[in-house]
Amino acid sequence: MDFSSKLLENAVNEVSQLPGIGKRTALRLVLHLLRQPKEQTQYLTRALDHLVNDIKLCKSCHNISDVELCDICSSHKRDESIVCVVEDVRDVMAIENTAQFQGLYHVLGGKISPMEGIGPSHLKIESLLEKVKSGVVKELVFALSSTMEGDTTNFYIYKQIKDYDIRISAIARGISVGDELEYADEVTLGRSIVNRIPFENSLRQS
Amino acid sequence: MDFSSKLLENAVNEVSQLPGIGKRTALRLVLHLLRQPKEQTQYLTRALDHLVNDIKLCKSCHNISDVELCDICSSHKRDESIVCVVEDVRDVMAIENTAQFQGLYHVLGGKISPMEGIGPSHLKIESLLEKVKSGVVKELVFALSSTMEGDTTNFYIYKQIKDYDIRISAIARGISVGDELEYADEVTLGRSIVNRIPFENSLRQS
Ligand SMILES: [Zn+2]
Ligand SMILES: [Zn+2]
Repeated sequence: MDFSSKLLENAVNEVSQLPGIGKRTALRLVLHLLRQPKEQTQYLTRALDHLVNDIKLCKSCHNISDVELCDICSSHKRDESIVCVVEDVRDVMAIENTAQFQGLYHVLGGKISPMEGIGPSHLKIESLLEKVKSGVVKELVFALSSTMEGDTTNFYIYKQIKDYDIRISAIARGISVGDELEYADEVTLGRSIVNRIPFENSLRQS
Repeated sequence: MDFSSKLLENAVNEVSQLPGIGKRTALRLVLHLLRQPKEQTQYLTRALDHLVNDIKLCKSCHNISDVELCDICSSHKRDESIVCVVEDVRDVMAIENTAQFQGLYHVLGGKISPMEGIGPSHLKIESLLEKVKSGVVKELVFALSSTMEGDTTNFYIYKQIKDYDIRISAIARGISVGDELEYADEVTLGRSIVNRIPFENSLRQS
């Protein structure tokens, strides 16, 4: 693409760094901003700057939060003996949306993926093991997506906690294998939390 | 969507103001930024702020430019007697990309659209008429998209200049009716500029 303006070119190049956004879409988005009042772009850029500079992770569950201890972790209505292990904030939002789960969460921040160079040390696994060792947690519910990476991560954690006196379950898969949690309808997802099964039963035959 | 963080919610809301970007896509993009080094978001927001604050339109053709008179208008190699009338900068980029047009452009900044409340006074039509009246322009080439709005705009301009000693043409439509210029392949688009036809011949039978 030959641009008539360096400013325009820079903006398009930066927007097209975003995943799934090509140069043409980036140009369309940038031209849209130019047709809006300047303030709209300022709201956008301030919100993004504010987010990346001031974002906090809950010190207990590692979910995105504006405070040290998130609303879920600090709520007296939640059952701290059940912890649901998820990949990221979108999974927490999806499960909370079902209103079927009263326990706490533990956000790993990803899945083990040798292909992408993500090992156990890149994820919030150590603090999960400490929670288990502390004895407060009576049940761990695995709710990672059922991909190879999700299974690998589940199994890695499972091996290190299976000798503790703790129930290890996995959400029931009414959802088809390979689907992302966040795209499931809430009825199916709510049911899969309620009907969780012992983790051993969830291991695939291979 | 229930967010665990106001910062996250604000960022997602602002990003989802962009056309074609829903809440879910916005959340995915924002979480992507959070996984990157902060600098990437800073580059993005600075490029956008810089663009909307410092953007200029060429004083002659109204194309986006970093200087008062754009590279095309100030070039000695271009034929100022032929002016191609387009909707926005994307059309200029598309036609320039064919390397088949040696004239200048006139960027209207949109099309007449009563539905969207866009009248002739919202577009750069007055300065186009002045160019025609000045006598420098010998040919006007309409290259708006062949939609009802494009046809309306062409015809509005045509009515006001048809009595001047000027050739009025329209790009040949090898491209199917209703298609946007910017998505045409360059061979077809280049040919349609070269084979432009008298405007009268381009009027649809209705
Ligand atoms: Zn928390
Ligand atoms: Zn110009």
